[in-house]
Amino acid sequence: MSQVVTPFSAERGLSERHVRILDAAERVFARAGFHAATMNDIAAEAAMSPGNLYRYFSSKDAIIGGISERDRTEVAADFAQLDPSKGGLLDQLEELGRQHMVRKPREKAIIALQIWAEASRTPEMAQICAGFDEVVEQGLGAAVAAAKASGELPSNLDQARFLTALFMMADGFFCRRAVDPNFDAAAGAEALFAAMRGLAQTMLLPPADGQTL
Amino acid sequence: MSQVVTPFSAERGLSERHVRILDAAERVFARAGFHAATMNDIAAEAAMSPGNLYRYFSSKDAIIGGISERDRTEVAADFAQLDPSKGGLLDQLEELGRQHMVRKPREKAIIALQIWAEASRTPEMAQICAGFDEVVEQGLGAAVAAAKASGELPSNLDQARFLTALFMMADGFFCRRAVDPNFDAAAGAEALFAAMRGLAQTMLLPPADGQTL
Repeated sequence: MSQVVTPFSAERGLSERHVRILDAAERVFARAGFHAATMNDIAAEAAMSPGNLYRYFSSKDAIIGGISERDRTEVAADFAQLDPSKGGLLDQLEELGRQHMVRKPREKAIIALQIWAEASRTPEMAQICAGFDEVVEQGLGAAVAAAKASGELPSNLDQARFLTALFMMADGFFCRRAVDPNFDAAAGAEALFAAMRGLAQTMLLPPADGQTL
Repeated sequence: MSQVVTPFSAERGLSERHVRILDAAERVFARAGFHAATMNDIAAEAAMSPGNLYRYFSSKDAIIGGISERDRTEVAADFAQLDPSKGGLLDQLEELGRQHMVRKPREKAIIALQIWAEASRTPEMAQICAGFDEVVEQGLGAAVAAAKASGELPSNLDQARFLTALFMMADGFFCRRAVDPNFDAAAGAEALFAAMRGLAQTMLLPPADGQTL
């Protein structure tokens, strides 16, 4: 087994009804904003009664938790597919990036921004975001470590700083895509990938004390 | 005159009362969120009557416009201070970055995220954000062009892509600072600056057709 990370969890096995509610909530949040959206709006969008909706999710926060959990499971599964035996890990990371940043509709970026804005003020939502980030950090960290070990990336790459730069770029990508309707997602992603490759060669650890270059 | 950009506009000359309202609104938005905040909350925070507040700003959107305009004027003035005769432009850009990203309180990042979340759904707010971005893009673009001309940066630097990567990192910095109360702003900014220097050397234009390396 040469996978870089092990799968995050068993398939959550969401019911058709759960999926329908989460999809409806995403559309409502993207349109109305998380704050203004009501459980009634979400029930209407999902074509069910509010009473029925509450049998599945007790609050908007619970729905956000469900959306985040679903995304987290999907991202973790995608990271688990990374496999050095399939080719270069940077190529595979680019493909994973295209899938989540470019091929998803702009609405996903708008929802992410709504959730982050809530999370900036409420510890519960910040906790949900931290849980999602952890999955990405683990997946990306494991991939970078594997690429260093295989020689695809320099062994003296400053991994912590490299990942910080990548995370900032990825978050900024989502911000710009959400805020600017004319943002060119494909060009933005290619700039990010080019930056990833440039930084992988230049963001190196300083030589240890007493060591000469 | 060797300044890289000319000042954006004359000092706006905000009255003491305007300044007090904008400061109060920033505190309220950071605490309650833009959406939940009311004009009454802002009036109370500014220690004035709602009626008096409305004499200065007709709505929350007008206040956001005022906050953005104030920030824009300040950032434009700071870019106008960049001057190749004072030393390396990358050093000066780092110092400008520290000033706006690290030395400002975390509340500024939270407010930025609140505004972006609104802007992702409302064209008027997106317009305000676009106006702010334009000032940064002009200032940074002029600085990079000057550094290319002086030989501080490679003449074949892919300026458009380089700036896209920097903007994404800067926006992502604000996101992470707003969402994660434990985010190390100084370390994040240093990662961004290191990335800027690495990319400045590696993010180059492809050689023109027919040209050999």
